[in-house]
Amino acid sequence: MSVTITGIGSYIPQGVAANKDFKNHDFRNQDGSKFGQENDVIIEKFKAITGIEERRYIKDELTTSSIAAIAAQNAIDNAGIDIETIDYIIVAHNYGDIKHGDLQSDTVPSLASRVKHLLRIKNPYCVAYDMLFGCPGWVESMIQANAFIKAGMAKKCLVIGAEALSRVVDPHDRDSMIYSDGAGAAVVEKSEEENTGIITHKSATYTYDEAHFIYFGESNNQEITDRRKYIKMYGRKIYNFALTNVSEAMKACFDESGYDIKDLKKVLIHQANEKMDEAILKRFYELYSMEMPDGIMPMTIDKLGNSSVATVPTLFDLIMKGRLPGHEINKGDIIMFASVGAGMNINAMVYKV
Amino acid sequence: MSVTITGIGSYIPQGVAANKDFKNHDFRNQDGSKFGQENDVIIEKFKAITGIEERRYIKDELTTSSIAAIAAQNAIDNAGIDIETIDYIIVAHNYGDIKHGDLQSDTVPSLASRVKHLLRIKNPYCVAYDMLFGCPGWVESMIQANAFIKAGMAKKCLVIGAEALSRVVDPHDRDSMIYSDGAGAAVVEKSEEENTGIITHKSATYTYDEAHFIYFGESNNQEITDRRKYIKMYGRKIYNFALTNVSEAMKACFDESGYDIKDLKKVLIHQANEKMDEAILKRFYELYSMEMPDGIMPMTIDKLGNSSVATVPTLFDLIMKGRLPGHEINKGDIIMFASVGAGMNINAMVYKV
Repeated sequence: MSVTITGIGSYIPQGVAANKDFKNHDFRNQDGSKFGQENDVIIEKFKAITGIEERRYIKDELTTSSIAAIAAQNAIDNAGIDIETIDYIIVAHNYGDIKHGDLQSDTVPSLASRVKHLLRIKNPYCVAYDMLFGCPGWVESMIQANAFIKAGMAKKCLVIGAEALSRVVDPHDRDSMIYSDGAGAAVVEKSEEENTGIITHKSATYTYDEAHFIYFGESNNQEITDRRKYIKMYGRKIYNFALTNVSEAMKACFDESGYDIKDLKKVLIHQANEKMDEAILKRFYELYSMEMPDGIMPMTIDKLGNSSVATVPTLFDLIMKGRLPGHEINKGDIIMFASVGAGMNINAMVYKV
Repeated sequence: MSVTITGIGSYIPQGVAANKDFKNHDFRNQDGSKFGQENDVIIEKFKAITGIEERRYIKDELTTSSIAAIAAQNAIDNAGIDIETIDYIIVAHNYGDIKHGDLQSDTVPSLASRVKHLLRIKNPYCVAYDMLFGCPGWVESMIQANAFIKAGMAKKCLVIGAEALSRVVDPHDRDSMIYSDGAGAAVVEKSEEENTGIITHKSATYTYDEAHFIYFGESNNQEITDRRKYIKMYGRKIYNFALTNVSEAMKACFDESGYDIKDLKKVLIHQANEKMDEAILKRFYELYSMEMPDGIMPMTIDKLGNSSVATVPTLFDLIMKGRLPGHEINKGDIIMFASVGAGMNINAMVYKV
């Protein structure tokens, strides 16, 4: 018995925010001080490190759950399944539904309940819940779906990652340029075929010193005293943390699979920061005394930014549907999903297509 | 192999809000109109239906995650386990951490990460995540822990339900008197003993017409135009929905266990509304052509109100520790956990102590 992805889908928001759109922002350091540089220079440096040229924002009338439902429908259509046969709907997100112009996050009912409602699924035994696990939430939800299928509790799961970070960004924080909106989804099914689909997985949560590396904090502009909070991070700490811990988790996961490292065709890593992702992959291959192979790590961050839980399924969707030039994944390929984010959480999964 | 509860704990907030403390509230109907009755009469009627005399509120300096950690430590002490052997920390909640006086909910990092941090657990392979499933979230998290153990992914899980509804109540809504704060937790472990612990479980999510029976809405006082949202519900619709669907889910779950209905010693049902809970139990026993046995349904709602995900584990904790006069549960007893809430979600679990 195996657990395989039978359908994949995504939603890429229509709103494009280019780097130049941040030209007139009043960027501040975390201590409230102004940068000693012009915005042109700040933005150029930002692009050089993160690889981000533009990012996507949802339209004002949309929310995280509405784009989750679009990606889900897309995956359902791709799988060609009857919606009434789905046993679980898992929605990974981190901030709930925040309406344009609102401060409050709306999580009741759960976003999974909203998605199920929007998909017009009637079967009450299709259990819908949300899971919060930072950016690694979609990969972790895949691991949960795998557990439910292996435990005999489900045969078919719809696993969604959706986020609208544009609703929680501080315009005075240079890091705001990283964040993006998006949704990705997969249909995961029990298969009678052996040794295919989800092969191994590894998860970790580092909280002893790391719990608050990514947090909810006030604006960098200390002249603003409205107590409103935004997504915030200690970028340097995260970079150092990820470099060691993600590459090691990936190795532990891959070694457990029993495959040869040369069999690994692609690593679909959370699109957080291009330089960081490259450093992680380089370190991962160093652990095998190898150089990082060309084309091993497909990237979308240049055009799509960091859309949290949505980056990995969106990347997989684009490749599988031939929409990421230069990259393809074929039946029988060994690939790896990996992610790191708030929590601090890390996970990796070896998957045979 | 079985999955059993080896430790249980709870946190009952110190702040007591009695019904009389609502005497000067300006209660309104959902359409903004005033009630045609004095508050004394409104409160007396409220008590007759819900059974609630008082409820508990956390102190200003506490949040949902801080009380979750207290309940968790309590369960860990009760189980007598080494904290570094826990494989999963699952925190069921619905509104995240809302600080006293704040509007925004803080969910990054996840509450599970915060709890793990507060418990000073170092082991990174203790995976911590949050799950959102309305009031049935704790029972559902128990089902997830069961799946992880059955799938061979875990041996020991810490399952917490925590909520501070006092941070999302509308003072102009009579229903605000229902809601309370609290936290409960269980340590769940793999056991080599057969036919004990979690025997059967059943979950359902009704969203086709029911998704928004419990929702986030503006104040009943329409003179307030700040767009701030609060927990809201259509009580009558929920009552009718629960009466049929909860009793049937309970029966489906119990029948699957293979036990005789006469073996059932206690039903620990979500403390939502005394009259509703009684009607559900009465209907459940009618499905077996029986009268509801005396003492089958221990209640805490009179003193503790409806603390969402916390009611069931708190109730279990109080009984197991001899703190609920007139009720006891002994080794070998067959009991049932059942809950209903936002989503609309329902679940039930047959458990052999």
